[in-house]
Amino acid sequence: MPTISPRYDEGKEMFTLKITVLGVGGMGSRFALMLHQAGNDVTLVDGWQANVDAIRQNGIQANFNGKQVAAKMPIYTPAEVAQAGLQADLIVVFLKSNQLTATFSQVRALIGKDTYVLCLLNGIGHEDVLEEFVAKDHLILGITMWTAGMTGPGQVELLGDGEVELQNFEPAGKDFAQQVVDIFQGAGLNPHYSENVKYSIWRKACVNGTLNCLCALLDCNIGELGKTAEAPALLHTIIAEFAAVAVKEGIKLDTEEVYQHVAATFTADIADHYPSMHQDLVQHHRRTEIGFINGAVARKGQKYGIATPYCTLLTQMVHVKEQLLGAK
Amino acid sequence: MPTISPRYDEGKEMFTLKITVLGVGGMGSRFALMLHQAGNDVTLVDGWQANVDAIRQNGIQANFNGKQVAAKMPIYTPAEVAQAGLQADLIVVFLKSNQLTATFSQVRALIGKDTYVLCLLNGIGHEDVLEEFVAKDHLILGITMWTAGMTGPGQVELLGDGEVELQNFEPAGKDFAQQVVDIFQGAGLNPHYSENVKYSIWRKACVNGTLNCLCALLDCNIGELGKTAEAPALLHTIIAEFAAVAVKEGIKLDTEEVYQHVAATFTADIADHYPSMHQDLVQHHRRTEIGFINGAVARKGQKYGIATPYCTLLTQMVHVKEQLLGAK
Repeated sequence: MPTISPRYDEGKEMFTLKITVLGVGGMGSRFALMLHQAGNDVTLVDGWQANVDAIRQNGIQANFNGKQVAAKMPIYTPAEVAQAGLQADLIVVFLKSNQLTATFSQVRALIGKDTYVLCLLNGIGHEDVLEEFVAKDHLILGITMWTAGMTGPGQVELLGDGEVELQNFEPAGKDFAQQVVDIFQGAGLNPHYSENVKYSIWRKACVNGTLNCLCALLDCNIGELGKTAEAPALLHTIIAEFAAVAVKEGIKLDTEEVYQHVAATFTADIADHYPSMHQDLVQHHRRTEIGFINGAVARKGQKYGIATPYCTLLTQMVHVKEQLLGAK
Repeated sequence: MPTISPRYDEGKEMFTLKITVLGVGGMGSRFALMLHQAGNDVTLVDGWQANVDAIRQNGIQANFNGKQVAAKMPIYTPAEVAQAGLQADLIVVFLKSNQLTATFSQVRALIGKDTYVLCLLNGIGHEDVLEEFVAKDHLILGITMWTAGMTGPGQVELLGDGEVELQNFEPAGKDFAQQVVDIFQGAGLNPHYSENVKYSIWRKACVNGTLNCLCALLDCNIGELGKTAEAPALLHTIIAEFAAVAVKEGIKLDTEEVYQHVAATFTADIADHYPSMHQDLVQHHRRTEIGFINGAVARKGQKYGIATPYCTLLTQMVHVKEQLLGAK
């Protein structure tokens, strides 16, 4: 059985953590690869058997800003975790939001009393799911601007630059969160310790809560949506609903700043990009993460007695479309 | 110049009206043909040149419940109306809702002080447009359950049965409206004089206001929509918005009865039917009539201070889709 507490590595004059990356798609592969390359102890867990097989055989194979690299790390399926006796000091979660409950239920053995979970997923309300599996003071939340794309089992494209912003969910987690920042710093992940990561999470959720569902339902890319006469009104109304709910959770969004932040994408390099929900729903007929974006705002709105009709209708329509397309 | 008042036809022992059918698509062709076959004086006006040419040459050619029939009537384009000295006792309107203003502006010469206008179009708020061209007490409103389909210029399929329900918009128009009922009766159009046609118009608008925009935006037929888990909630919320606005116009919709009326389509013969807005938008990339359905409820809601977020968002999304598809 591996120990579950950080060990002091005298050679490196640092604590080393046993890091598990849970969910080894594009982003999971990026974080695993960069942490591994920086000398960290990284283990992988992923539920897609073809991906597990490919990585087991060849490691993660990446086009890393034009350079072809490969990195071998131990990899397990969630079902193998308990039997392998795996435990982790830090679990970095890159599952799909709607896989959280099912997968965490399978990998409970990974989580000891000192295990921290870092969640960098897009969307809102992941902590509500994760607190079933990890104590709140062992939860670290964040956002990342890194991007990544899968091109096949075990194969990823890791292009461009990014950042990570993170913060412990409860004050007690601060020391550990800062340790994570140090480790990420060493791996070139450009981390920042945030004093108000919940604000950043809600602000980023406004990007996903406008562009993702609208582009998916209307079958268009970001720039095409932005050129329509209705785009400003649509964005303003949806952001206002996010803000009305966020304030009930202690986050006061600057709605005009957030609007400008979202609208800036209409003419940015990513204008010709189809958001991930479009890729999931329209291109691959997969179930979407709407329940952790507009759906979360609708649920929380109901809880707080705040009307969120746009978020509710958009969520309903995405769910209808999932059913029409037989999304799995 | 033809006279504009009804003339007593001694041979037939009835007043004959000069009837103009304005808009000779499927439904316009049906009404024109059936009125003409019953011996009425019917003139056609249509803006589609190929349709006008075909009808001028061969008359309206119809598959009339399996029997091929043709009926020649004079036909003009809107631009020819003034020069031809045309006037009408009764104008039966079967234009697209969003063509009303432009076309009526062109055919003003048709409308004398005794001319009545009968509008059987789906949707809400046509009277607001028409009162610019005809006095309110010369306006007759109604709905029809007849169907019709165009198969080409001058060619239509007229299958099945139907009904018409109509009523003068103001009390002063009652005698004339009842005269129209008599004429329609003679033409086999199954008319009923209604004591509350506005209720029927709003009730029918609830069918279009739910099925049309949802099937168009979600690219599905009526039955497919009805099979989704969200359909009941979507219908209830949209119908509630229609009802909240209707009550401000003196119409108290029985929302549960209306819901059952709409939901009944999910398992009816027309379940495999794509509503006209799907045909317009998705199939033919044409501008839709959303502005006279959900868009009218949104506009009226704003006027009365009633929140109609579902109708507003659905209208916005349909307009976005029109722009994305370059609809004309």
